[in-house]
Amino acid sequence: MTPDPIDLPTPDDVAAAAAAVLDGTAHRTPVLTSRLTDAELGARVLVKAENLQRTGSFKFRGAFHTLSRLGPRERRAGVVAFSSGNHAQAVALAAQLLDVPATIVMPTDAPASKRAATRGYGAEVVDYDRYTEDRRAIATGLAERRGLTLVPPYDHPHVIAGQGTAVHELLGDHGPLDVLFVCLGGGGLLSGSLLAVQGLSPGTAVYGVEPEAGDDGRRSLRAGRIVTIDQPRTIADGAATTALGDRTFPIVARHVTDVVTVPDSALVETMAEFASRYKVLVEPTGALAMAGLRAAVAADPQRFAGARIGVTISGGNVDLDRFAALVAAH
Amino acid sequence: MTPDPIDLPTPDDVAAAAAAVLDGTAHRTPVLTSRLTDAELGARVLVKAENLQRTGSFKFRGAFHTLSRLGPRERRAGVVAFSSGNHAQAVALAAQLLDVPATIVMPTDAPASKRAATRGYGAEVVDYDRYTEDRRAIATGLAERRGLTLVPPYDHPHVIAGQGTAVHELLGDHGPLDVLFVCLGGGGLLSGSLLAVQGLSPGTAVYGVEPEAGDDGRRSLRAGRIVTIDQPRTIADGAATTALGDRTFPIVARHVTDVVTVPDSALVETMAEFASRYKVLVEPTGALAMAGLRAAVAADPQRFAGARIGVTISGGNVDLDRFAALVAAH
Repeated sequence: MTPDPIDLPTPDDVAAAAAAVLDGTAHRTPVLTSRLTDAELGARVLVKAENLQRTGSFKFRGAFHTLSRLGPRERRAGVVAFSSGNHAQAVALAAQLLDVPATIVMPTDAPASKRAATRGYGAEVVDYDRYTEDRRAIATGLAERRGLTLVPPYDHPHVIAGQGTAVHELLGDHGPLDVLFVCLGGGGLLSGSLLAVQGLSPGTAVYGVEPEAGDDGRRSLRAGRIVTIDQPRTIADGAATTALGDRTFPIVARHVTDVVTVPDSALVETMAEFASRYKVLVEPTGALAMAGLRAAVAADPQRFAGARIGVTISGGNVDLDRFAALVAAH
Repeated sequence: MTPDPIDLPTPDDVAAAAAAVLDGTAHRTPVLTSRLTDAELGARVLVKAENLQRTGSFKFRGAFHTLSRLGPRERRAGVVAFSSGNHAQAVALAAQLLDVPATIVMPTDAPASKRAATRGYGAEVVDYDRYTEDRRAIATGLAERRGLTLVPPYDHPHVIAGQGTAVHELLGDHGPLDVLFVCLGGGGLLSGSLLAVQGLSPGTAVYGVEPEAGDDGRRSLRAGRIVTIDQPRTIADGAATTALGDRTFPIVARHVTDVVTVPDSALVETMAEFASRYKVLVEPTGALAMAGLRAAVAADPQRFAGARIGVTISGGNVDLDRFAALVAAH
């Protein structure tokens, strides 16, 4: 079902969210650079480090923006969200800051650090099995039984507008870019980023980057409609989605330059690159955009020669033992 | 031998260096926070992340400041430096940026990443054995034979003033602090930080933090003179110094509140804390200040209750395999 067009967020919504969300609440995250990476790629690479955002990922932006726009009755009743992790922590902290009760539906195999952090922010955690149960149905059921407002992880205009504020900041702080790489799971960050680009740097070529095993976005772009895939198995748990949303797909399909995919091995290489050169801890999903840039440059070096390229790190929530095991083995 | 007092840098020198060094050359590094760490310590902890500085440590500040003040003849002749690593990279990059030839005397057991980075910046590397040779004598010999200017790692007024710009920024961006913890090796960062505090926040109590095995600073403070110890063996290679300098000691002795020490095991714990909560990679030496804060709070929790506390991360240059081995084993 195609949503009513009025339900789609606009570049102005991103700019408004940037003013509202950033008002002393979200971190204006730093932009990192590496001379070595620039030299290797023959370009100027500006890395927007949303792993240094509150709760360790960009998801705080969309969650806080969405919750901040609830009415007083909805705030009192509370919210429910389903998430593989980062959206969970984001909704939990946003709810705590706004004094809203929160219930989070999380997969049983979510990283321990994400589960602990979600509980630490005072949210109630309800478990489900990622491979046999439908998290959306569980969350919807809770919403109906308890009168809660569902905060979807990506397919919501306020969520999309909130996520767009990361790239809105990047463009505001560093000016127009030639190219931008953004990770692609459900499409919240990518569609929000596309809106930010429309508003501040419409000449930027924007690439979405998916894990090879979870290439529903690329398939959807080729097919011209939302293609749903089986639950993908990838180390990029934040992009282990099965389909784009009714709101994210039309924005992506209309504005994205292309969608590229990378294997899990490239994510591990990129996590090591971020740690050794940029001195930051990045989760596998957070490495998608940089890995996609490297793949794109390898495929067509001339295309990016001398370009000013933005790269988003989506998050840094990876258990330390897992991080150590991944990068030590690579 | 006590140096001429005119040779000691002042708070005004730090302010002047901040204006000169920061003029589009050094990064204004971000300040990181963690709600979890704040809750555990019962204080507000502001972490100045110099591991995100150019070359991965604060040393770039002092090196660039010093080289930028050389005359044209000294620049043409070139510079020489001795360093366990971070000062080496810092001098090498500063020299490259200012078009000055650089020779670096490095210990054979310096981390591979630091040696590679130093060569990558175009410097000539001369090896020495940390446990049998005198690096200062080697560097001085090179300086005399080749007409080079020696850039010492800490005992130089321009180096000290440059290092002070990190805390100068922290205080400028976040206002006065109740307490500040700074790592202590040769005393360049600590004495510079003390000058910055004198200029912008004279009420701040400042603590230096040393590795237990390298407690020459604490001994010197107690003795009221520079105490030299045997070459210490600690994972904090950046603080494996044997004595404070003729210029750093009097500044530290006059202004520091106290010097505390921490065992290497606490550094590993703190590296894990920085990675899992702050999402940044920190080298063992870089963890000294936070580990010292934790030790001080454990010893006297009431002393720091509700305080605004600054903590410096000195650097993030640790080989990734070593980092993984340390934190996975902790």
